[in-house]
Amino acid sequence: MEIIKEKTDGFAEEHLFIQMVLAEWKKQNTNLDKLLNMLSDEQFSAAIAPGRNRGIYLVGHLLAVNDGIAPLLGLAEKLYPQLESVFLTNPDDPKAQMPSITELKEYWQIVNTRLEKFFETLSADQWFTRHTAVSEEAFAKEPHRNKLNILINRANHQSYHLGQLALLK
Amino acid sequence: MEIIKEKTDGFAEEHLFIQMVLAEWKKQNTNLDKLLNMLSDEQFSAAIAPGRNRGIYLVGHLLAVNDGIAPLLGLAEKLYPQLESVFLTNPDDPKAQMPSITELKEYWQIVNTRLEKFFETLSADQWFTRHTAVSEEAFAKEPHRNKLNILINRANHQSYHLGQLALLK
Repeated sequence: MEIIKEKTDGFAEEHLFIQMVLAEWKKQNTNLDKLLNMLSDEQFSAAIAPGRNRGIYLVGHLLAVNDGIAPLLGLAEKLYPQLESVFLTNPDDPKAQMPSITELKEYWQIVNTRLEKFFETLSADQWFTRHTAVSEEAFAKEPHRNKLNILINRANHQSYHLGQLALLK
Repeated sequence: MEIIKEKTDGFAEEHLFIQMVLAEWKKQNTNLDKLLNMLSDEQFSAAIAPGRNRGIYLVGHLLAVNDGIAPLLGLAEKLYPQLESVFLTNPDDPKAQMPSITELKEYWQIVNTRLEKFFETLSADQWFTRHTAVSEEAFAKEPHRNKLNILINRANHQSYHLGQLALLK
């Protein structure tokens, strides 16, 4: 009886912490949603500080990172692989061709809605399997490099740039 | 046999998860350590962007937040409660009396070293108990408001301001 009870508690906690990580990740997306609704297109065209990245670049950067989560988790391909060059591989370049902020906002909703649906299909155990950027050999030694850790890491990355985007207000 | 195996996996994942959250929290502290070593006192006296918070204020703010983790987790009192008024309750005020950046750096190491020692004493189950800012009644309905969630939240809060402090470079 005691063993069963402990087992149940262990599994309850396991589900709980997946919820905790998902909740923090969604909270950061919601924080960007709020900024996207609050700021004008002109504000997104401005740099966050003199000589620094423009708002539109950081929005595209966060979008491209979220679009990369599905392949990292082995769930699907990217929806907008064309964003990679301009928003991930290269620094902000005012001369670069990029989608408008209106288009980026639209893609942002599509990418996150798709991810949330994917996440609902993952079991607790699946969250603890390796992501696609780590080999089986490396994962055997570093079991923290799992799918759930991607979301912990991405939420913090997003917080980092949200602190910068908030300067556009 | 199958039940025991599942139980063991559940608990292994629980421990792994705590390590993952602690690792992300420590990573954010290390990121601030690097900035503290890299930037001059003059750089910390500057605002992160025109008319925004100064570097020294954000360092004190992050320090005061970390100093508040021990009481939130029911482990100990704050070491530097005097930081609360200038760095948490009030916005950045160039006329306010505050410790020097050298003193803040010293406190930062002391606070985090103490926290890491405390964290080693917490069992996996204790991490999933409520923090002191949530009542027993509320916690029964919202079990994610546990001690571990404080660290998830604080790591993201720190990332947010690290993105701003990085502008001092």
